Amino acid sequence: MSGEENELATVAELSKRRGFFFQSVEAYGGVAGFFTYGPQGADLKRNIEDAWRDRFLTREGHMEISAPDVMPEPVFESSGHLDGFDDMIVDCPECGESHRADHLVEDHPDSEYEDAEALGIERVAELIAELDVACPACEAPLAGEPVDEFNLMFETDIGPGSSQPGYLRPETAQGIFVEFPRLKEYARGKLPFGVGQVGKAWRNEIAPRRGLIRVREFTQAELEHFIDPETDEPPLGDVADVELPLYSAAAQDAADGDIETLTVREAVDEGIVASEWIAYYLGVARDWYDGIGVDMDRFRYRQHLPGERAHYAVDCWDAEVEIGGDWIEATGFASRGDYDLSNHAAGSGEEFTVFKQYDEPKTVERPTVDPDMSTLGPEFGGEAGAVADALADLAARDPGAFEEETVTVEVDGESYEVATDVANFAVETVTEAGEHVTPHVIEPSFGIGRLFYTTLAHSLRTDEVDGEERTYLELPAELAPTFACVAPLVSNEPAIVDRAESVREELRAAGFDVAYDESGSIGRRYRRQDEVGTPVCVTVDHETVECDEFDAATVTLRDRDTTAQARVAVDDLTAHLTALRAGTDFADLLDRDGVHSV
Amino acid sequence: MSGEENELATVAELSKRRGFFFQSVEAYGGVAGFFTYGPQGADLKRNIEDAWRDRFLTREGHMEISAPDVMPEPVFESSGHLDGFDDMIVDCPECGESHRADHLVEDHPDSEYEDAEALGIERVAELIAELDVACPACEAPLAGEPVDEFNLMFETDIGPGSSQPGYLRPETAQGIFVEFPRLKEYARGKLPFGVGQVGKAWRNEIAPRRGLIRVREFTQAELEHFIDPETDEPPLGDVADVELPLYSAAAQDAADGDIETLTVREAVDEGIVASEWIAYYLGVARDWYDGIGVDMDRFRYRQHLPGERAHYAVDCWDAEVEIGGDWIEATGFASRGDYDLSNHAAGSGEEFTVFKQYDEPKTVERPTVDPDMSTLGPEFGGEAGAVADALADLAARDPGAFEEETVTVEVDGESYEVATDVANFAVETVTEAGEHVTPHVIEPSFGIGRLFYTTLAHSLRTDEVDGEERTYLELPAELAPTFACVAPLVSNEPAIVDRAESVREELRAAGFDVAYDESGSIGRRYRRQDEVGTPVCVTVDHETVECDEFDAATVTLRDRDTTAQARVAVDDLTAHLTALRAGTDFADLLDRDGVHSV
Repeated sequence: MSGEENELATVAELSKRRGFFFQSVEAYGGVAGFFTYGPQGADLKRNIEDAWRDRFLTREGHMEISAPDVMPEPVFESSGHLDGFDDMIVDCPECGESHRADHLVEDHPDSEYEDAEALGIERVAELIAELDVACPACEAPLAGEPVDEFNLMFETDIGPGSSQPGYLRPETAQGIFVEFPRLKEYARGKLPFGVGQVGKAWRNEIAPRRGLIRVREFTQAELEHFIDPETDEPPLGDVADVELPLYSAAAQDAADGDIETLTVREAVDEGIVASEWIAYYLGVARDWYDGIGVDMDRFRYRQHLPGERAHYAVDCWDAEVEIGGDWIEATGFASRGDYDLSNHAAGSGEEFTVFKQYDEPKTVERPTVDPDMSTLGPEFGGEAGAVADALADLAARDPGAFEEETVTVEVDGESYEVATDVANFAVETVTEAGEHVTPHVIEPSFGIGRLFYTTLAHSLRTDEVDGEERTYLELPAELAPTFACVAPLVSNEPAIVDRAESVREELRAAGFDVAYDESGSIGRRYRRQDEVGTPVCVTVDHETVECDEFDAATVTLRDRDTTAQARVAVDDLTAHLTALRAGTDFADLLDRDGVHSV
Repeated sequence: MSGEENELATVAELSKRRGFFFQSVEAYGGVAGFFTYGPQGADLKRNIEDAWRDRFLTREGHMEISAPDVMPEPVFESSGHLDGFDDMIVDCPECGESHRADHLVEDHPDSEYEDAEALGIERVAELIAELDVACPACEAPLAGEPVDEFNLMFETDIGPGSSQPGYLRPETAQGIFVEFPRLKEYARGKLPFGVGQVGKAWRNEIAPRRGLIRVREFTQAELEHFIDPETDEPPLGDVADVELPLYSAAAQDAADGDIETLTVREAVDEGIVASEWIAYYLGVARDWYDGIGVDMDRFRYRQHLPGERAHYAVDCWDAEVEIGGDWIEATGFASRGDYDLSNHAAGSGEEFTVFKQYDEPKTVERPTVDPDMSTLGPEFGGEAGAVADALADLAARDPGAFEEETVTVEVDGESYEVATDVANFAVETVTEAGEHVTPHVIEPSFGIGRLFYTTLAHSLRTDEVDGEERTYLELPAELAPTFACVAPLVSNEPAIVDRAESVREELRAAGFDVAYDESGSIGRRYRRQDEVGTPVCVTVDHETVECDEFDAATVTLRDRDTTAQARVAVDDLTAHLTALRAGTDFADLLDRDGVHSV
């Protein structure tokens, strides 16, 4: 096994054995692409979500909403997902297995293609024949088999019958976009404002693979920042000096292109990151990744190549992390322009704009008509109203047309000629206080499962303690699933066990996530906690119980990373643990009053 | 409008206007039964979830997992949901609208039935004819129309094609039950242990109604506590004195039955709550409801009537809250027995048991066979192995059969006769260390959306301030969507605005959810925060800025409930707000050093 494979295998084995994640429903044989977060994993995942919420919503002053996972068809007609959210599928004529056609081409040993999807469906079908690609399951030849588009949304029916199709959302973003008309009211009609959502999304992958990396059900944390592209500017100064490891499109195209480290300010000034807003979030996110345990030596920002962008994206950078020798997308930073709001406005007939007040009211000339309906009515019957509307449209579009004696408008493909004086054309001078603007959207979109996986892989450490190899997770204290483990030194002395249980209860009541373990030697218990990344172990022993009589009980604290130990008063335990959870170094704890190194 | 209707209308209006919740996708006409939690609502809902997690998982030492929302068909074959999770549907022959048949019967003015579902599908069809029920949408008669069962699960297809049906889970519980074989390993094979989950669940209601009460997509917080029913006991002493307002099945049946308030201990001793485990959770939950703002004068525990229990429930109590004149189920406390684990064991062929060690090993006699395969093989050919297995089964079931000269076993409906001496029957004496036990399940199942709705309705207050009617939400500080609002006294003095912004940033960096508001008069701003339940407002004024020069800046704090105000040092602000968030009374704040009433 290579070092890279070894990393993935160690993470997978540890995750299953200690309850971080595992394939769901294994009792019934499992289902590809669905995973369950176990007791350690559910806590770690939630802590990552909370850390995201704190940094990208609370600290930025953005709103959060929680929209349904199931949404009706018209939403996805407008968003483009019904048409554009497809993968290429080819079915084996022998065994019936379905495959990603583009992946088969990429994976073929004679293939020179790294991104076959960009070649288009017809070329991929040709390449399957040219390369003589065989079914990976049964080895039957696939040449000549049809390559089709397969829509990745999970479909269901809302209510009885099939009259109202619904879909599991393919991204949380749409739940924000469709509610824009109401959300802007909560923002009191003022740009810029941001709305985030943490929740599930689904992609019905043809062939899920690589554990948590390509799954069918996953969790996203998405922020949609609505801005006026003409006037709003991000607080770039807050992150100007943050250093970004950038892998630009140009560098990817060049033969010797590589990652280049620039500050946010430099990246903007040199035009490498075109949008200041994207640059701002690259800066904010870089420090955040660092804080949740992503190894900054295995991290980069990669710009999308022109052919690679999603159907809505104007410009896009991915945060990528290296795991098991591969670079994995963990976050997409996209400038979505006004694509989504404009499409939902067109699809729903509602307004998806904000009213932008001018600094001073503007006087503008506006062409109008006021058709004489007593003439139009007899002349055009049921179409008279539509003709009047068409005249108003024409006046706005081409006022010059009314300089002739008659004007011609079209309604439902029919031409209607109207005498100009019947239309009552005029140009009015009006004062306008502002204009309706469709905001643009800046979107940092985080894959929580992939970040979870990265945090696990990048936190994994081995060292040697007492001549024995030790595995531990160097998770940030804020993220650790269990913050402390309380243990009695021995399990067969009721006084010590009772005291350990009372310490456990006290810490739980103070809001700490506390494990309790009385089985096996104290050394084994430390190892078990090291493996799940518990920062602190608290051991209750004879001395604790004896000193209780004098209200001077102490316990031993043991640090996960250094295995250093300290003796502290039980009365101060909550205060010490609070400090450690907030990021105080264990070594600094030893400087405190009443704390003694052991 | 009655007072009750008024309560519902006020909650709905406030919720929509201020962003607690609203019907989803209204731009496209909305979808019945789907709601979006707005910026205030998403925070309040998450705070309720966190409060639940803290009390029912962290403090109890239980685990939490996060399983997929989409699960494959075999899970729901075993759970009983494919067969039993139905509502009665009748379609209108004229307009095509679908209706809950049992609800039509209940809602008919001449109907005497409150729970028509219990009557069965045939009787409901008869009653539709007898009562001459008409379609509520178009008034066409429904007599004679077929009443069918409609399964309430949302169905979809996993992967390409329709070969692998999946369902949106109808309860989070199944995601826990199916993983029991692995979860028990994390519990190190020892009962009792509890596993909780907070997540979405779905019911494809025929006719959603009553706002957040009967919806198609909702959030549950469920705890599955796995116990050995023979030996495990809850820590009843911890809640023995908690007073429970109980509405027993007997009281519901009696003409003059009413709610009876008993302590947990009394309820158990008098046999009103049969299960000590259920009684324990009724006690824990009662104080928890109180803490999240449920009005204890509008709260009761109602026992299910025998005909009303879910297909899995052995005994069940509901926590009910009164809103708008109706009693609403907010939590179900069910003793599910070994129903779920036994069914998943049978359905999957896996073990859903724990090994329970005896205090001392037991010596037992075990009948065995050791069939002579050199005889069975030639005689029964391909069936020889199955015959040998059948002999082993027979030995365990009916050892006496081997006292005859031949024994007969059945394999796939065929009888096979075997000479007893060929079977090599014997009774061995073996020592057994323990036995495999299928745990029983105690389940408190909370509907988060309903609790959210209850907290809103029960927190709503009106009073009069400065001669003006005021609406405010008396939410517990821990649950308030926004904890504090920072405002500059005036918005046209840059020094004050800048200082207010710096206070805001400081509080956000300290982890407080802080709003900022500089529009309108300070009085209007207080009213806006009162309406969304923000406990504290912080006002920055001229004095703040002037005293900055002497490092002695102060701000005004204003209390939501009493509208009392206090002047505090900016340096102490974080400490004061931390105390208020943890539950310190605003009046007590005034006793602190450096705090002055205003």
